[in-house]
Amino acid sequence: MYRERWVRLQKKMRDKGIDAFLATQNVDIYYLTGSMQTGYAFVPAAGDPALFVRRSVTRAMTEAKTDVVPLASLRTFASELSARYPALFAAGSVTLATEFDVLPVQAYMRLQSAFPGVTWTDGSLLIRETRMIKSAPELKLIRQAAAVIDTAFEAGVAALHEGMTELELMAAIEHSIRRKGHLGLMRMRGYNQELITGMVGAGAAAALPTYFDGPAGGEGLSAAAPQSSGRRRIGRGEPILIDIGCCIEGYVIDQTRTAVIGELPDDLASAYEQAEQVLRRTEERLKPGTICEDLYAAALKQVKEAGLSDHFMGYGSDQVKFLGHGIGLEIDELPVLAKSFTYPLEPGIVIAIEPKFTFPGRGVVGIENSYAITENGYEQLTRSREGLIRLP
Amino acid sequence: MYRERWVRLQKKMRDKGIDAFLATQNVDIYYLTGSMQTGYAFVPAAGDPALFVRRSVTRAMTEAKTDVVPLASLRTFASELSARYPALFAAGSVTLATEFDVLPVQAYMRLQSAFPGVTWTDGSLLIRETRMIKSAPELKLIRQAAAVIDTAFEAGVAALHEGMTELELMAAIEHSIRRKGHLGLMRMRGYNQELITGMVGAGAAAALPTYFDGPAGGEGLSAAAPQSSGRRRIGRGEPILIDIGCCIEGYVIDQTRTAVIGELPDDLASAYEQAEQVLRRTEERLKPGTICEDLYAAALKQVKEAGLSDHFMGYGSDQVKFLGHGIGLEIDELPVLAKSFTYPLEPGIVIAIEPKFTFPGRGVVGIENSYAITENGYEQLTRSREGLIRLP
Repeated sequence: MYRERWVRLQKKMRDKGIDAFLATQNVDIYYLTGSMQTGYAFVPAAGDPALFVRRSVTRAMTEAKTDVVPLASLRTFASELSARYPALFAAGSVTLATEFDVLPVQAYMRLQSAFPGVTWTDGSLLIRETRMIKSAPELKLIRQAAAVIDTAFEAGVAALHEGMTELELMAAIEHSIRRKGHLGLMRMRGYNQELITGMVGAGAAAALPTYFDGPAGGEGLSAAAPQSSGRRRIGRGEPILIDIGCCIEGYVIDQTRTAVIGELPDDLASAYEQAEQVLRRTEERLKPGTICEDLYAAALKQVKEAGLSDHFMGYGSDQVKFLGHGIGLEIDELPVLAKSFTYPLEPGIVIAIEPKFTFPGRGVVGIENSYAITENGYEQLTRSREGLIRLP
Repeated sequence: MYRERWVRLQKKMRDKGIDAFLATQNVDIYYLTGSMQTGYAFVPAAGDPALFVRRSVTRAMTEAKTDVVPLASLRTFASELSARYPALFAAGSVTLATEFDVLPVQAYMRLQSAFPGVTWTDGSLLIRETRMIKSAPELKLIRQAAAVIDTAFEAGVAALHEGMTELELMAAIEHSIRRKGHLGLMRMRGYNQELITGMVGAGAAAALPTYFDGPAGGEGLSAAAPQSSGRRRIGRGEPILIDIGCCIEGYVIDQTRTAVIGELPDDLASAYEQAEQVLRRTEERLKPGTICEDLYAAALKQVKEAGLSDHFMGYGSDQVKFLGHGIGLEIDELPVLAKSFTYPLEPGIVIAIEPKFTFPGRGVVGIENSYAITENGYEQLTRSREGLIRLP
């Protein structure tokens, strides 16, 4: 399983004339080695990788599927690497790729000093594209996460009542998934983005725009946590957006359902139906070969015909410009169903597709499922019942 | 309150010949402006700051204590900045500081391209040192967090019983604090470091080393979450380390207590007493003027005299080299009570001090309190009862 990952990354490296990939980020290191200890995963363009570990070496030894090399300090790293990969460094000019999308400038500068003469290049896309295609064991964990979140969703719906705060409902859902092994947060790659377990947002609060790179914002708890659930009480006749996920053994799931106590106003109920229709039309094209940006363009067209363009994926200047996103070890993986993402779908891609409509002052309605692309089409990973959830 | 922050940062900038500070990180932006929306906080060495916002502008307008300038794209940022701060940019060569410790390389390179001719310098220490001194409103929030975690701690102790898993106890504590407004995680500045709400670790599991930059690791849930609580059942006669915190309106608290069902073996009970003694001796010197590294050195000496050096703050090669750390908007703030941190304590500094002893295969014992330095000494922020918590 790990060798397959290395081989895929190595092929991409050789295509770009890169001599080796140095993973510095915890999630990438885990993906490449099976361990998340502090250090560096080094993957040469040819040959076996190694995990150079600062801390904890003892723990890395029990976890890693690669050789583990204790790393005394960054100063000795270059000589230890040359000792282990003599041919690579003897060749003269060496090009190393690393994750410019997450690596902080300070850490990068220290690497530059530790490796004089090395040419550094951005390897973010190489690793993200490698990670985009999931293996069978990865799919199995995402299915497990889907089962955990479905149970929590039903528990949440059972507990949901008028006058309950968003935060109380969110906390009940979180308590359910945490006890079943949820990490406690969902890892995100994007700078400054953070996500606990999604959000429960009711009525006007759900429609408040936020910094968060998603279609529904939420009031949040304060200006220091300005997204997701807040302390607003859930009322009758307003949409309750339940956009939740969890992280089981590193892998996340993402799903959204819409509930209401009583009945939704007709236009919101109709917008919810439209969200399901967008999802159905997208599913029809969910198979190998379909181009990601085409799915987004088709959804835009469908929404325009329904007269809902202004409300799609946020409102006005706070709209986000995508229909879905890859999930895996992080919630913001490749591919993105958005303009200029020209990846063709292929087996092993896992995406969350989330058509939503925002009505300022009134709420957000929508649905989100996660899917794995298969040889002939797709497998739906999220299990929760669809349709507007109506409570008495 | 905000002006005071700007003035302190501006003085540091002028001392270093820096023309302006550009905050890119969500927490720094919040600290400087009162808003955490996506964009940049720009603080000139003289004059008023402004918040340049990509998303959400409408939300930033309601939150920010500075002017808010909608930012169409990074390409127009330089011209918008020159328009707003003509004198600064007319002067010719401009030196801008930003957070090299957290800013990813890709984002930095985009800034470099957007501002040709600007000299960039690392402003990490400037902002971290500015944030090190807390104002009265910040202390008030940390006291609130301390009250929330104390209630959760007592609820946890009340629920604690033999055979319960670490995760169940941790989840119960988390559920309590979440309902009281905990963000869901505790923000950390360090690359690759993540923290939900600390850890409950029992017996051998607590003593397992991890990548995490703290004295107690924990088994965790899997190799993809290799720290903090795991699924181990809590047994009789073993130390139960309850190292927890929460984040209320952005501000965190950090505390540790040790419990046992039945009795601890004598040597562990004695090590626990030693941890309290280290804390007491440290408290005696907790006042303005004391040098941070001296507190660490004194603790090392005290521990050596007690014959516990090998067990202090981790075991063997997995020991961490500090006694405490600043807390505030993040859990890993300045100052650090460690070698080469020569800051003198001053009023407004808030630190968590956490003497702990690790016994491989047996567990971790220790205590942690958070303190604010005052004019004459300190105020203890954590409220939970001290002493080894003995349960029948």
